[in-house]
Amino acid sequence: MKVILLSIGDELIFGQSLDTNTAYLSGQLARLGLDVCRHVTVPDRIEAILAELNEARSQADVIIATGGLGPTDDDLTRHALAKLLQTELVLHEPSLRQIEAFFDRLGRNMSDTNRIQAMIPDGCETMENSLGTAPGLVARLARGPNPAATTAYFLPGVPREMTEMFEVSVLPRLQGQLAAAGAGRIMLSRSLHTVGAGESAIAQRLGPWLARGRNPLVNITAKDSLVSLRLNAWAETESAGRAMIESAETAIRGLLGSLIFGTDQETLAGVVARLLQQSGRTVSVAESCSGGWLAKELTDIPGASDYFRCGWVAYSNQAKEDFLRIDPEILRTCGAVSEPVARQMADHARKLAGTDYGLGVTGIAGPSGGADDKPVGLVYIALAWAKDVTVETWHFPGDREMVRRRTVLAALNLLRLRLLEDSAGLEQPPVPLE
Amino acid sequence: MKVILLSIGDELIFGQSLDTNTAYLSGQLARLGLDVCRHVTVPDRIEAILAELNEARSQADVIIATGGLGPTDDDLTRHALAKLLQTELVLHEPSLRQIEAFFDRLGRNMSDTNRIQAMIPDGCETMENSLGTAPGLVARLARGPNPAATTAYFLPGVPREMTEMFEVSVLPRLQGQLAAAGAGRIMLSRSLHTVGAGESAIAQRLGPWLARGRNPLVNITAKDSLVSLRLNAWAETESAGRAMIESAETAIRGLLGSLIFGTDQETLAGVVARLLQQSGRTVSVAESCSGGWLAKELTDIPGASDYFRCGWVAYSNQAKEDFLRIDPEILRTCGAVSEPVARQMADHARKLAGTDYGLGVTGIAGPSGGADDKPVGLVYIALAWAKDVTVETWHFPGDREMVRRRTVLAALNLLRLRLLEDSAGLEQPPVPLE
Repeated sequence: MKVILLSIGDELIFGQSLDTNTAYLSGQLARLGLDVCRHVTVPDRIEAILAELNEARSQADVIIATGGLGPTDDDLTRHALAKLLQTELVLHEPSLRQIEAFFDRLGRNMSDTNRIQAMIPDGCETMENSLGTAPGLVARLARGPNPAATTAYFLPGVPREMTEMFEVSVLPRLQGQLAAAGAGRIMLSRSLHTVGAGESAIAQRLGPWLARGRNPLVNITAKDSLVSLRLNAWAETESAGRAMIESAETAIRGLLGSLIFGTDQETLAGVVARLLQQSGRTVSVAESCSGGWLAKELTDIPGASDYFRCGWVAYSNQAKEDFLRIDPEILRTCGAVSEPVARQMADHARKLAGTDYGLGVTGIAGPSGGADDKPVGLVYIALAWAKDVTVETWHFPGDREMVRRRTVLAALNLLRLRLLEDSAGLEQPPVPLE
Repeated sequence: MKVILLSIGDELIFGQSLDTNTAYLSGQLARLGLDVCRHVTVPDRIEAILAELNEARSQADVIIATGGLGPTDDDLTRHALAKLLQTELVLHEPSLRQIEAFFDRLGRNMSDTNRIQAMIPDGCETMENSLGTAPGLVARLARGPNPAATTAYFLPGVPREMTEMFEVSVLPRLQGQLAAAGAGRIMLSRSLHTVGAGESAIAQRLGPWLARGRNPLVNITAKDSLVSLRLNAWAETESAGRAMIESAETAIRGLLGSLIFGTDQETLAGVVARLLQQSGRTVSVAESCSGGWLAKELTDIPGASDYFRCGWVAYSNQAKEDFLRIDPEILRTCGAVSEPVARQMADHARKLAGTDYGLGVTGIAGPSGGADDKPVGLVYIALAWAKDVTVETWHFPGDREMVRRRTVLAALNLLRLRLLEDSAGLEQPPVPLE
């Protein structure tokens, strides 16, 4: 099944936004084993949209378009589609009611401008938008003499609305079409996410697994200070592909051990949350340089109240003394960024909140505040638990955001490894790096 | 002058890389005032590249292609170009010497694989690659009966090599072509970021400013729960363009008032930080449902210790009682998610930390924990300052992440509007939304 992706928007044509939608959709379609012939981006102009739809329907079985469904004058996708179908825009009552309900939930009145989003080319199907106001559209486009029609899906350009609509409304239809067509070779993928080692250290351990031309093919990428592996397997059947992925994964896990923290959509915070939930344990945090980011990560997860009790963002020395009862003498002699202060932060957070674990973080995120003996990037991360308090000293490279991000990841990983140790059913012993 | 951008690469078609090259080139071309008709991405397949080049040369004056110039078997751009020009690949001695010199500098021997990078379609020009091994290519493509030829530039896909080659070798040629054509139209841009109103409400206020075909052209986009305007002006000179932008900006600011919080690279937290720093005021926060995100935003900014003292992430009721001294009676009768609890959180955070402002946030982020009278998305946001405590009640749509993000934005905006009010030099009075 051939697919063409169409992105619509001046902001893309002018280079003012990165087209993350197309990258997302491409990844999803590749996973289905669909043949993406090309991506096209056009400006907010009816003729340009029309021309590309015309071209694409003669070449592809499926078109997925994003953008141009908003309520304003520069949103022209539905007009172009009506023109292509030689039909008119008509009011779609259920969509109007959904848009009204959306504004009701916001406690705002729907403006007349939004009414256009309930206008759809006569004969089109709609797809519900659970996160925004623009319904998606589905149209069957005749292919001239070709009896098979092309199915065109029109999704909003707002990334979160688009991904939600794709997963809920488009993906199941594509899977259905594929099943009906008795598809051929499929691609299966699995991501393995690691923490605690750099790209080249990981690559060295993996050796021949990273060779080109293999099946499964293993790609390595570094993103947001984490290194991930992507295993792509091509096979005739899903079960054959799955077996290939599983066997490669087992071998790679043998090489990387607990450096691997999760797979696919899992996040480091999500894995920590799962380990906490499974063990019924609780955590509190005392943060300085990470400024609430660690608490945010731990509370991003639904059900965080099961394991998260309290966090302090004790930014000033006074706050450290007043609310975390850090010894003023230690603050004076060792400074706020020091091993003993991190230790007390973790220990006191744990004791004040009455949790199983306490994390304490203090450091210099920069860009200012560094000194020769305490440079930007110096961070102390402490973990207190029933038996002990452990403190790690880090020197993180990069700018303020990178130092803060790495601080949060290192703190989460410290807790993750402790949770693995503390769990009776420890599955993978940590593999220390030389 | 019409331009088509062509990206070549399986990693793009499989969604494994984001096409930052195209965004970069689009921005550069827009600034020159060139008319980018579309972006196309194709896989590493000769026929696909050939078909797009054929199509593009009939429509554009300039084609800029990126990718497919590497040394491996999947790099097929030069082969496709040779086929299009109906010519052979020939060894280009100067390029070979440059590639050899590149490896010399690295202290490595050139492998035979890299020799292919010095092979170019007979009759093409090369562009030097100062950062890598693949020289760029320039070809004149006949346009059939049309006497004017299309100029096609082929650049490497590695972003740093691409941008360097574009700036050194392509940009001056384009500027020369523009000067020769007497074009000289440039594009200037400005973004205006708003908070507190939806896309359609903003559109309604702007009315004719959003009409298509205007100069300056105003585009409206929603991203991460904020609505932004992008003003693009095309003019003969930079000063004329600047004047057009400034005059449009003044008019739009008159219509939107304090709904506009910043321009271009500014963030909402950054603007709040600036207002706090300018007024020498300080803030503390007490968070429940936002879980540290508000503190994180406020401490993302370099120099945050000037204005941020302390934050509490009081997730459990016990933490609210113990550390924020919320009245247990109120917690029992009204519940943790209630107007009086938000009020006390803000008030007590301010008083405990001794800051000018205190923000308190409590709500139901979901997905669970909602009830008929207190549904998911219900959030109370309180701001305490010297004279009063104000509380806003919100019903945010969307999932957990969206509710939390909107909570943080609304809290920051509440503080921003208060800071504007409290500032002597209040420039724009808030414009209330109906």
